[in-house]
Amino acid sequence: MSGGLLTETQIRRVVEMALEEDAPFGDLTSAVFVPEDAVATADLMARESGVLAGADVVVATFAAVDPRVQVQLDLADRDRFGPGDRIARIEGPARAVLRGERVALNLVQRMSGVATLTAAYVAAVEGTRARIVDTRKTTPGLRALERHAVRCGGGRNHRYSLSDAVMAKDNHLALLDDVTAAIRSAREQLPHTTHLEVEVDRLDQVEAVLAGGVDTIMLDNFSLDDLRAGVELVAGRAIVEASGGVTLDTVGKIAATGVDVISVGALTHSARALDLGLDMVISSAGVPGPGRQTTR
Amino acid sequence: MSGGLLTETQIRRVVEMALEEDAPFGDLTSAVFVPEDAVATADLMARESGVLAGADVVVATFAAVDPRVQVQLDLADRDRFGPGDRIARIEGPARAVLRGERVALNLVQRMSGVATLTAAYVAAVEGTRARIVDTRKTTPGLRALERHAVRCGGGRNHRYSLSDAVMAKDNHLALLDDVTAAIRSAREQLPHTTHLEVEVDRLDQVEAVLAGGVDTIMLDNFSLDDLRAGVELVAGRAIVEASGGVTLDTVGKIAATGVDVISVGALTHSARALDLGLDMVISSAGVPGPGRQTTR
Amino acid sequence: MSGGLLTETQIRRVVEMALEEDAPFGDLTSAVFVPEDAVATADLMARESGVLAGADVVVATFAAVDPRVQVQLDLADRDRFGPGDRIARIEGPARAVLRGERVALNLVQRMSGVATLTAAYVAAVEGTRARIVDTRKTTPGLRALERHAVRCGGGRNHRYSLSDAVMAKDNHLALLDDVTAAIRSAREQLPHTTHLEVEVDRLDQVEAVLAGGVDTIMLDNFSLDDLRAGVELVAGRAIVEASGGVTLDTVGKIAATGVDVISVGALTHSARALDLGLDMVISSAGVPGPGRQTTR
Amino acid sequence: MSGGLLTETQIRRVVEMALEEDAPFGDLTSAVFVPEDAVATADLMARESGVLAGADVVVATFAAVDPRVQVQLDLADRDRFGPGDRIARIEGPARAVLRGERVALNLVQRMSGVATLTAAYVAAVEGTRARIVDTRKTTPGLRALERHAVRCGGGRNHRYSLSDAVMAKDNHLALLDDVTAAIRSAREQLPHTTHLEVEVDRLDQVEAVLAGGVDTIMLDNFSLDDLRAGVELVAGRAIVEASGGVTLDTVGKIAATGVDVISVGALTHSARALDLGLDMVISSAGVPGPGRQTTR
Amino acid sequence: MSGGLLTETQIRRVVEMALEEDAPFGDLTSAVFVPEDAVATADLMARESGVLAGADVVVATFAAVDPRVQVQLDLADRDRFGPGDRIARIEGPARAVLRGERVALNLVQRMSGVATLTAAYVAAVEGTRARIVDTRKTTPGLRALERHAVRCGGGRNHRYSLSDAVMAKDNHLALLDDVTAAIRSAREQLPHTTHLEVEVDRLDQVEAVLAGGVDTIMLDNFSLDDLRAGVELVAGRAIVEASGGVTLDTVGKIAATGVDVISVGALTHSARALDLGLDMVISSAGVPGPGRQTTR
Amino acid sequence: MSGGLLTETQIRRVVEMALEEDAPFGDLTSAVFVPEDAVATADLMARESGVLAGADVVVATFAAVDPRVQVQLDLADRDRFGPGDRIARIEGPARAVLRGERVALNLVQRMSGVATLTAAYVAAVEGTRARIVDTRKTTPGLRALERHAVRCGGGRNHRYSLSDAVMAKDNHLALLDDVTAAIRSAREQLPHTTHLEVEVDRLDQVEAVLAGGVDTIMLDNFSLDDLRAGVELVAGRAIVEASGGVTLDTVGKIAATGVDVISVGALTHSARALDLGLDMVISSAGVPGPGRQTTR
Repeated sequence: MSGGLLTETQIRRVVEMALEEDAPFGDLTSAVFVPEDAVATADLMARESGVLAGADVVVATFAAVDPRVQVQLDLADRDRFGPGDRIARIEGPARAVLRGERVALNLVQRMSGVATLTAAYVAAVEGTRARIVDTRKTTPGLRALERHAVRCGGGRNHRYSLSDAVMAKDNHLALLDDVTAAIRSAREQLPHTTHLEVEVDRLDQVEAVLAGGVDTIMLDNFSLDDLRAGVELVAGRAIVEASGGVTLDTVGKIAATGVDVISVGALTHSARALDLGLDMVISSAGVPGPGRQTTR
Repeated sequence: MSGGLLTETQIRRVVEMALEEDAPFGDLTSAVFVPEDAVATADLMARESGVLAGADVVVATFAAVDPRVQVQLDLADRDRFGPGDRIARIEGPARAVLRGERVALNLVQRMSGVATLTAAYVAAVEGTRARIVDTRKTTPGLRALERHAVRCGGGRNHRYSLSDAVMAKDNHLALLDDVTAAIRSAREQLPHTTHLEVEVDRLDQVEAVLAGGVDTIMLDNFSLDDLRAGVELVAGRAIVEASGGVTLDTVGKIAATGVDVISVGALTHSARALDLGLDMVISSAGVPGPGRQTTR
Repeated sequence: MSGGLLTETQIRRVVEMALEEDAPFGDLTSAVFVPEDAVATADLMARESGVLAGADVVVATFAAVDPRVQVQLDLADRDRFGPGDRIARIEGPARAVLRGERVALNLVQRMSGVATLTAAYVAAVEGTRARIVDTRKTTPGLRALERHAVRCGGGRNHRYSLSDAVMAKDNHLALLDDVTAAIRSAREQLPHTTHLEVEVDRLDQVEAVLAGGVDTIMLDNFSLDDLRAGVELVAGRAIVEASGGVTLDTVGKIAATGVDVISVGALTHSARALDLGLDMVISSAGVPGPGRQTTR
Repeated sequence: MSGGLLTETQIRRVVEMALEEDAPFGDLTSAVFVPEDAVATADLMARESGVLAGADVVVATFAAVDPRVQVQLDLADRDRFGPGDRIARIEGPARAVLRGERVALNLVQRMSGVATLTAAYVAAVEGTRARIVDTRKTTPGLRALERHAVRCGGGRNHRYSLSDAVMAKDNHLALLDDVTAAIRSAREQLPHTTHLEVEVDRLDQVEAVLAGGVDTIMLDNFSLDDLRAGVELVAGRAIVEASGGVTLDTVGKIAATGVDVISVGALTHSARALDLGLDMVISSAGVPGPGRQTTR
Repeated sequence: MSGGLLTETQIRRVVEMALEEDAPFGDLTSAVFVPEDAVATADLMARESGVLAGADVVVATFAAVDPRVQVQLDLADRDRFGPGDRIARIEGPARAVLRGERVALNLVQRMSGVATLTAAYVAAVEGTRARIVDTRKTTPGLRALERHAVRCGGGRNHRYSLSDAVMAKDNHLALLDDVTAAIRSAREQLPHTTHLEVEVDRLDQVEAVLAGGVDTIMLDNFSLDDLRAGVELVAGRAIVEASGGVTLDTVGKIAATGVDVISVGALTHSARALDLGLDMVISSAGVPGPGRQTTR
Repeated sequence: MSGGLLTETQIRRVVEMALEEDAPFGDLTSAVFVPEDAVATADLMARESGVLAGADVVVATFAAVDPRVQVQLDLADRDRFGPGDRIARIEGPARAVLRGERVALNLVQRMSGVATLTAAYVAAVEGTRARIVDTRKTTPGLRALERHAVRCGGGRNHRYSLSDAVMAKDNHLALLDDVTAAIRSAREQLPHTTHLEVEVDRLDQVEAVLAGGVDTIMLDNFSLDDLRAGVELVAGRAIVEASGGVTLDTVGKIAATGVDVISVGALTHSARALDLGLDMVISSAGVPGPGRQTTR
């Protein structure tokens, strides 16, 4: 989906919160070591291969610090890069560049880490019908950014939150005498626009769930054989999602069972920050100087 | 340091933001599938070994959802656990337990991941004088929580932010004709309570920096030999911090050079979420039921 | 749907904002005319017939002012009442009761007005398959409360916002060379949990839209004959929603065409406040007094 | 009074809150159906007669979404319009115009509804000395906007809140042994800038209230005869406000009794949204297209 | 006026902001030197004479830190005290008492300073008809607290803000051809509840202003003779306020001219903090210890 | 230290809060007396001698009200001025200038008062090694501004808050069996960047404290003789801070004892607002008019 779903409001809130957290009462070092009129040029460099996510976040971070900072992007979100590639050049007042540096890096490194890991999962299911989707196992406060990163890596999103789709788990169902009736009743109460997904643990639960009328059935922690059997049993009556025990090693085989959707918590909860850094030159009073600083 | 540094205000802000993010307009699934009077018992279980961080965050999450939820802790922060150990039992209205589940897990899994990784670094330098410290490479919005997690793992903290200590990097210094004079001038302007740390890239920078009067000198990306030489050269005139290229493989050797402090960005930017989950039983109207749900 | 979708957080925010708006720097009248230890008993009375919505909001308003105020509900949301019926009794410090009075009334009168109007629409389609649903034409800031009120009146909700379902209007489609392909492409990009609804203005647009694979097709401003034709044409391949020109006079006929959903902006944008009032007795120092005050 | 009383801060807060409410995590439909470079021209059209209120709110809404959107006003607040009149033209990025559309309409329709209803009341008392004023029975969160709308319709405002003037009701007085003394005491404590208004239910209360020294006396739910008697009795010693049972049918007769002020809760609690809509043309990549969309 | 005008909401906001400012990321000293289970008893002591203002603020500060802290008040707002008098005793967890100490003192010392200075002004006009009132020259963010302090000292309040009363200064009037007409026009536009005050610099402006119909006329920077002449000229047609050049030396003579109101900016902009302090005993694990700490 | 430590974010928050406080629902006076197109020129004038602090705050206040207001500074922070000196000229829409006037004055008068008082203390210790520093006895909400003002007056800052340095007082120590061991233990737990200061009341406590390894030792309420003895005893092993009983009369003698730092609560808690005022000319429709208004 288009990047349009990561809104400027969402980015601005994260960036402002992060900048506040990183300097609640000013930057002592700049105040004593960096002249107010010093300028800096900083190159955002890749030190390893990956997929970019967060270019807008970098731009927004420096804009929030000081609108005089210029960010020129060499790459766009979804682009792949290798070690040594320049992602962006940042120029402006040195104090402002230094102020935004750590926050911008912390965000773009994490987001690109998610995008890169997602791309690996997506590559592993190429040629199958399965889409790789994220989960609610995102970093608190950064869900919108991480979902965007998943899209940058070629993945798709699952529901955003508890508020925009229903997912009933087995122990929701365990409460009920008649699963089919309960699903029908839920459907009756829910907005007609609400997607209704139900999770099952065993093949013998599938028919009762389908009889209630669901949009997606999730087969949780099924063996590959059971997944294949499940796909066959559902036979197009609902979208089939596989979940549980998904790794880069297993995801291709899971996809080969014919499921429609594979949800992978690891995309967001276990991606590591990608190795990106700023190469910076600060010059006093606009005169280019020799000092190079590297921040990762 | 005592957990007293992770304040209730900081926890509450993160928890409220995360709960809002995870259900901006209610929990559709509970509304249609979980009776208002259903109750749940949920066990927070470890599925792998690690060090606990975030017990207070779990408590605060469920308290923020509904004060009727009771959380009974089996373990405290800094405790080690193995797979199958129960960390806490949560009991209360089923809708509230389900509402808090994902947020509590997202936080405690990340925090315990940081604590566990830190503990590995700390173990690797045992018997040396070196302390393992964190950096500003934390997850935006979660710095206070992640620093607490580092402490739980036996690490120590570096400065909190740009506002509470000075760290001058080489390209700050590159601007200056006379490094020694510049450091003296900074010291003169700074509050007497401000710690002054300066980073150097080469051994030949050490004397000029020390002459200015610094509290800590950071030797950045030094070889082991140069670290040893640096420690000898500084000779107790300042705290010596090593930084750059620190991994679980190298950290022991770095510590053996005699440095005082080793800062490790990976503690927070590359820790993966630990595998913890909730085993839940929901009962209608207070009657215990059989349904078991597992969430990681 | 259960009232569980109107969350305490949503109610609290509205209530706090409204209380702040109604007395940004204190209640001058109480300060000079009401002794600090005076107590009040106030009865929330219906002065006309209707359907109640907002009981929790009344409770939350007085709780936000002063936790010592007790609200005892005689009726619950969805209950019908006639003129003279008591809805609730409020007792507590007189200053607190007076402080919360106007805010509580402003909210419950509006919400009950929405519920009552919705109930009239629902009654008008009884015996048909059509469900009455709301729109995004809600009062800014009060959407969650008004959607709850619609449910109290027996209506159902449409999507909450632009973020939780897709609704493409004809001039979205007008941009496209191939509507069917565009819908397919959208489906491909969207989360599998996203409901896809498309609006058409003419019967001849229906087939191309259905071919793309939509969940709901909205027939906008169709004549009754065209609605009937549309329902027949769609033939169960999607949910059929009618919209436009819906009044209490026309809604029954529209429902009789066989559509599944009728969306009615008037439920929220044109409901008038219901005539409810507080009959209050204030007593100095806990001694019941004779003064009766009526507020609507 | 000049529109200067509806401040930009007040407008911005309402608009930002409403935009957030209407798309907490982005606009799914635009993301998949509207190219990022598509542009739109939208005409804000009147579909019935009325008085405009909220032009600045329309401007502020689109400005908050995207500063590139241009709003050109054909009419100003307080202007009258008939069906088919164009109120404003909005041009800019199509995604931004669609994003702001519903919020702008929801606000301007409500505000113009209030202005139009107020104008009817004002017309009904023309030729008398009575001014029509609003009450605190406003929509929570929108008080500043609705008071502005009342002024646009030719009405005047009553106090803004509990904080800026005193209004004592009969059951405040019922607590007191000596009403006259109590009013004098209140006057003594209150800032000299605080307007002191007291409500009475019966003619025989008037003298005691006036003896205390009030600025305004409110005659609540008086018959026309009693109103006339009250005006005569007060004889210019205070402003006379009539309240209760005021409708478009009765307001003229009430005004004819000689009262100075008539307060009308219905201006804000029972105005319906006026029928205004956006006629929109979206063009891909700046090329004007044929698609017309109407939103009310 | 009753303390009811300083609302809990106002107090809570100031207290939370101040606590956040005073420890944005925890209290390092307590964390390393005060055991979590240590308890403290602290006496809030007067070290000089004065009038108390802010008792509720002290209570609210410690309550915001930790609800387990108990504050027992020996004195109430408006009470006078001498050096050595105990104002309150605070008991609770030592970390919490230390956390709230500085914030509570900063607020109560300032507020009591304002109250004490006000009391001196009030005493200086005793026996005259003049009331001493404050101005808008308050500490930004603390207006509600300082106005309360003025009341505690026996003073009265002027308008709260630009929003709740009109005060036209001479250069407002300088714009106008016809001052009388302008005032009449303003009166016509303003709510009938709005107090209209106009400032004049010279006696010859008085008649034109009174002719317009004002509630208060302010005689700004008048000599004592001119004040007397002004009072005579106004002759009860409006409240007379004197302003400018008011000191403790002059205020008595100004009051003797017969003016009704004397506004004194110094009450809030030049009051110094009163000398109050906390005498504290911290005990480890609940055992009373000998250590005494004094904080002012 | 450079003014860079007073950040735009800090200024903006204070200014927005103060503007909101000063006109929560608009400026009634301007609305009825000042034409929307009137312009004003206002000169910020000194009426007594002093040191300027807060120029950026003045600029930010008017910018927050209306970006069309131009502020031209004649003086910069740290500059000295005498009565009659112009500090700045403000030009723009009259309503905006009037709206910002009181807030700008309230802030710059207070800040310049702090700077001026600080300058007097600094002058009194000239020629000694002592630096004058502030304390946490600042106005709640204005700490960042007041610390900046202290720097403008030539003073230095102490720690910002409880979060950025440790200061142990005697009754912290009273809890401990072994002060030296406790300090060592604290040092071990604290970040290596945390400054550790300990307060002593008597000379005989000095050795035990120094043995623990502190950065600063505070000699609280010592006589001049004891201060001299303390300095000699410490002998450069720690920074020596004097505190308690510091006035303009005593500070020079205290400085002469050889202490490094003198902390003075009075700098912020007892500075009075400096006498600055706005001389304003408002002109209708851009035509310069004669009316002069003075606001202090």
